[in-house]
Amino acid sequence: MIGASGYAGEELVRLLLAHPNVELAAITSRQFSGKPVADVFPRFAHIEKAMSLKFSDARPDELVRQAEIVFLALPHGLAAEFAKPLLVAAANPSSGGQAGARVIDLSADFRVHDAGVYKEFYGHDHPAPDLLGQSVYGLPEIYREQIRGAKLVACPGCYPTSILIPLRPLIRRKAIDRQRILVTSLSGVTGAGRKIEADYLFAECNESMRPYGVPKHRHLSEIEQELSILAGEKITIQFTPHLVPVNRGILTTICADIAANVVNLDLKLLFENAYGQEPFVRLLGDERFPDTKNVVGTNFIDIAWRIDPRTNRLVVMSAIDNMVKGASGQAVQCLNLMCGYPENAGLL
Amino acid sequence: MIGASGYAGEELVRLLLAHPNVELAAITSRQFSGKPVADVFPRFAHIEKAMSLKFSDARPDELVRQAEIVFLALPHGLAAEFAKPLLVAAANPSSGGQAGARVIDLSADFRVHDAGVYKEFYGHDHPAPDLLGQSVYGLPEIYREQIRGAKLVACPGCYPTSILIPLRPLIRRKAIDRQRILVTSLSGVTGAGRKIEADYLFAECNESMRPYGVPKHRHLSEIEQELSILAGEKITIQFTPHLVPVNRGILTTICADIAANVVNLDLKLLFENAYGQEPFVRLLGDERFPDTKNVVGTNFIDIAWRIDPRTNRLVVMSAIDNMVKGASGQAVQCLNLMCGYPENAGLL
Amino acid sequence: MIGASGYAGEELVRLLLAHPNVELAAITSRQFSGKPVADVFPRFAHIEKAMSLKFSDARPDELVRQAEIVFLALPHGLAAEFAKPLLVAAANPSSGGQAGARVIDLSADFRVHDAGVYKEFYGHDHPAPDLLGQSVYGLPEIYREQIRGAKLVACPGCYPTSILIPLRPLIRRKAIDRQRILVTSLSGVTGAGRKIEADYLFAECNESMRPYGVPKHRHLSEIEQELSILAGEKITIQFTPHLVPVNRGILTTICADIAANVVNLDLKLLFENAYGQEPFVRLLGDERFPDTKNVVGTNFIDIAWRIDPRTNRLVVMSAIDNMVKGASGQAVQCLNLMCGYPENAGLL
Amino acid sequence: MIGASGYAGEELVRLLLAHPNVELAAITSRQFSGKPVADVFPRFAHIEKAMSLKFSDARPDELVRQAEIVFLALPHGLAAEFAKPLLVAAANPSSGGQAGARVIDLSADFRVHDAGVYKEFYGHDHPAPDLLGQSVYGLPEIYREQIRGAKLVACPGCYPTSILIPLRPLIRRKAIDRQRILVTSLSGVTGAGRKIEADYLFAECNESMRPYGVPKHRHLSEIEQELSILAGEKITIQFTPHLVPVNRGILTTICADIAANVVNLDLKLLFENAYGQEPFVRLLGDERFPDTKNVVGTNFIDIAWRIDPRTNRLVVMSAIDNMVKGASGQAVQCLNLMCGYPENAGLL
Repeated sequence: MIGASGYAGEELVRLLLAHPNVELAAITSRQFSGKPVADVFPRFAHIEKAMSLKFSDARPDELVRQAEIVFLALPHGLAAEFAKPLLVAAANPSSGGQAGARVIDLSADFRVHDAGVYKEFYGHDHPAPDLLGQSVYGLPEIYREQIRGAKLVACPGCYPTSILIPLRPLIRRKAIDRQRILVTSLSGVTGAGRKIEADYLFAECNESMRPYGVPKHRHLSEIEQELSILAGEKITIQFTPHLVPVNRGILTTICADIAANVVNLDLKLLFENAYGQEPFVRLLGDERFPDTKNVVGTNFIDIAWRIDPRTNRLVVMSAIDNMVKGASGQAVQCLNLMCGYPENAGLL
Repeated sequence: MIGASGYAGEELVRLLLAHPNVELAAITSRQFSGKPVADVFPRFAHIEKAMSLKFSDARPDELVRQAEIVFLALPHGLAAEFAKPLLVAAANPSSGGQAGARVIDLSADFRVHDAGVYKEFYGHDHPAPDLLGQSVYGLPEIYREQIRGAKLVACPGCYPTSILIPLRPLIRRKAIDRQRILVTSLSGVTGAGRKIEADYLFAECNESMRPYGVPKHRHLSEIEQELSILAGEKITIQFTPHLVPVNRGILTTICADIAANVVNLDLKLLFENAYGQEPFVRLLGDERFPDTKNVVGTNFIDIAWRIDPRTNRLVVMSAIDNMVKGASGQAVQCLNLMCGYPENAGLL
Repeated sequence: MIGASGYAGEELVRLLLAHPNVELAAITSRQFSGKPVADVFPRFAHIEKAMSLKFSDARPDELVRQAEIVFLALPHGLAAEFAKPLLVAAANPSSGGQAGARVIDLSADFRVHDAGVYKEFYGHDHPAPDLLGQSVYGLPEIYREQIRGAKLVACPGCYPTSILIPLRPLIRRKAIDRQRILVTSLSGVTGAGRKIEADYLFAECNESMRPYGVPKHRHLSEIEQELSILAGEKITIQFTPHLVPVNRGILTTICADIAANVVNLDLKLLFENAYGQEPFVRLLGDERFPDTKNVVGTNFIDIAWRIDPRTNRLVVMSAIDNMVKGASGQAVQCLNLMCGYPENAGLL
Repeated sequence: MIGASGYAGEELVRLLLAHPNVELAAITSRQFSGKPVADVFPRFAHIEKAMSLKFSDARPDELVRQAEIVFLALPHGLAAEFAKPLLVAAANPSSGGQAGARVIDLSADFRVHDAGVYKEFYGHDHPAPDLLGQSVYGLPEIYREQIRGAKLVACPGCYPTSILIPLRPLIRRKAIDRQRILVTSLSGVTGAGRKIEADYLFAECNESMRPYGVPKHRHLSEIEQELSILAGEKITIQFTPHLVPVNRGILTTICADIAANVVNLDLKLLFENAYGQEPFVRLLGDERFPDTKNVVGTNFIDIAWRIDPRTNRLVVMSAIDNMVKGASGQAVQCLNLMCGYPENAGLL
């Protein structure tokens, strides 16, 4: 693991320390270099490995010798810098392909295929545009097969996970008007990462509700990319995120017009066909509502729906833990696919 | 005040005890009958009036002799029952019109003009349909003049207040497509009232985010009534409320298509023309975001907006305190209008 | 499990469903009889057993045939009523001892050995005083060996767990003045159980801090009983509990005078001798502080200490999850001891 | 006001803007220099003065010409630096005494009379030891008369306010053993100020309870100084503060042995004699408990008590708003005394 001092990093440490098939070989952090994991994250203090394993400085050349899989839990921009040497070694024929490592990146650096879109939304040139073609978008509900063989997996953001899974079967089955999709999300404060800024102080967030990032949040780049691929045409959505005083969770509400030619839409059938076999999708139907407290600490996404006969729209609602299904749990789910482990290994 | 044991009632007590022009003559509650106000609401324990004034049983015939204005802070259905004798006495010529009282009702009973719509949304026959014609919808930003002379004011619900004020100038000026209005709201837990139900226990709400009341929340009845009046045509909207773990506040986000024939929409001008002189509307413009923590405890509504050139929609966001501008503060604002006091008396 | 609808019951369901050695044979609840576990507790909706297992009415005679161990998660008073037939059957020679069940009780009914003390603190006669002699106090850090063979285990309350573990070695080693022990505790709201009362509504607890149960909280009965046994003399302590707006956790602070004849008290050595080998005690030493967020969801107790040279007192601080080490996790730890499983089975 | 960017500063702005006798002449902040108050604190956006008044750089020489009273809301150490020129000008006979300003300091710089104690607790030499003799400790319940004429008032810290007011009559009347006073406090997160540190991020404080500053919190210096003055002998106490996830409030619990020679201690009489006429002390008696939610936003201290016949100790509990009675409200109360305004002006 490279860069483990953020909230997603801490959660990934938790999952990897408990994973039956994983041996955590090295963990890096400039800030905590030299300190045992258990000192930095006291809630792991009883785990032997957490007491013996120390944070080190990130040396990609060493890491490729130590590990088969390298997780990057770094800020965007920086992740691509670290991915390069790891992947180049892997691709180098003279190394026999064995010196390299497969990479699971939790940042935004390899989610968007188009370097121009990346620059538009992230405000700087992509640091490794030549690698963009190699990455697989790490959403198993869409790209399960491609993830198995991937060298570089780009784990989706938390908002995109909560939006794409519910929308995929609706887009695929042409159930909705693709040009009239409106999404509202509520996010817990860890969604902002462990940013030491006034906006995220306790007394600024507690007893507060606020929208932000309207109308062009960065995650729109990957959301619209994936929706457009699914639809086979350019899709643009409305997206309004809000910050809410809970530690964890994303609650997403999607409203869309039912497509003009659709009659007797059976959402239960549609979602069960799409996700009845998915290990981490729970379908709540049209009588219950998702609640983030039911998914916190788990890798599940809960999905419920309603048809509004007054407006001929459907409302689909989802809940995930932004740190698990929205980040580190999904990364482990990808790891399981890449390594041929049971898909839910270490996640139940 | 009739029925003061709920959260809105407690907030109204707070405002009336501090109001320079008000003498609180009587306060009723079956549950607390005989107890001093200060015993029931310990945060008022230093106020002499709260120590001397005791809760009594509600006797409308006595109340009309004691008070010029009667506030009803009762559940829907019950409020109409109490309003009847108060208003009938007022209308009775043999009493010289002096035995009656003007009524400010905080419940939903007199908000909807059509008894059929009331039954559709509230599930029972309206208890006093003949009074519906007398009531004025207590939103000063729309009905200021009518409120001044009203015998019966029906204070709007918290969601409607947060939705109608931002939408009014957009509807009036035909800035938006009236058939494509989508509203999402986040509510603090006092919005549910002081209901002693498992759903509102601390551990059920804390660290939880959940939608509810989708797709046909009761407040839609008054929201759509008022929007339709403003538009001169039937308007139906999409409305998705959520419960969020804060004590107080409503945060509303409205998305709407810009009307087809509108070019160069100047929202700043539109909102300043509409609300530049309003004592309780604060316009935040297109660079800041509303945050409920800035309005909690006050009678203000904060409004911000964005135009999204990618989708040709506008996003308007508002924040209020559901207990103040969304209930008791608005009731006091109506009182001030009815009695000719400064509109902000007791509200700053 | 008998009576699984409270918070401790729900947590016990979580632990038992995931326990590698446990087959949950039956689960009872009057309120939820007939409903699948997954319907009542949606966060278990992905677990097959939770979908197939339904709540039933409690029939002790059937339960003793179905289960080797019966957990009671019932209010005090009621638990003893259910324990009687379960234990009597077990003791009946004509049944070959096989018809009975061993009982792990999470209520207060069998914690206190003296029926008079029970009545003093719980306000009613003990419903089964003849069984008091059979019960073992289920704190493995004190009674590990006795728990292994017990027929009836009385799991300690959450406060007592957080207080007795830190105090035990201090009492045993005569490090402190036993007549001058002052304890303050902070409890999360689930500590009150799933009581549907106004006091535990979200808006009554959120943004609130309050003491309660001063000066004679019920848990004093078991705390002082156990301290007195450890000391070999009657011990009376000062105990001040507080309610704090978090879901889970107990934070306890103990102040005591260092015993008159003690010099060079080495608390590190004392605590390591006492608990160095304990699977669920983590010693934080004299530089760090416990924080409930590090133990929530786990069965650990974190303990830190300071010596105050200004006052010649020591301050010992502990943190537990009231639902886990303070209730259901401890019950599972007892189960593991009773059945010869690894003590941490199902608890990591 | 010098230094208004912290939480106590913001609260003081709120109180001064609404104070009927105060004209806020100038407000300084390096960070926000040039910005209108309403831009920095959006919740004051409707107040004309907040829109017109801009933050400036602090120039003591100008301020003494602009203002009769200067409030210092600065970190300790810095406050003394600013106080010096303000007070020196005031003392300078050649200026006719009119060029100077009276100072109300909210920092810790002038609370402790002994520069050695200051250095012991604050870790650096006192920056203006010669001014220590001039300062009056700004607790009106003890020093009302001295505050009226003071040139320099040192407002107490939040913990000391919550501890000294309840203890004063107990010490004075010799009701308790002065050498056995144990105090536990719970503080909301604003108590730490607007410190942008990881420890105070939302996700670090929410769902967390933790002690800190044990055993020698800085506030002990002023608490023990004042208790010793009251007692006429050196008093040392035990003090354990905790951080709790609420925005505001201090909840303090004091345990003390009843003095050996005291019989039939009548706490009601004792507290009523001491505080029956105090405008901001509310006595709750021995049946109710203080709750911070009843004092938040107010300048009141709520006090309740119990006698524990089992231990012969008394337990006294208090609640204040750390930002109001614990800081800015108390500063305004001092201002009112200094200027001859009604003591509760601007505070109800």
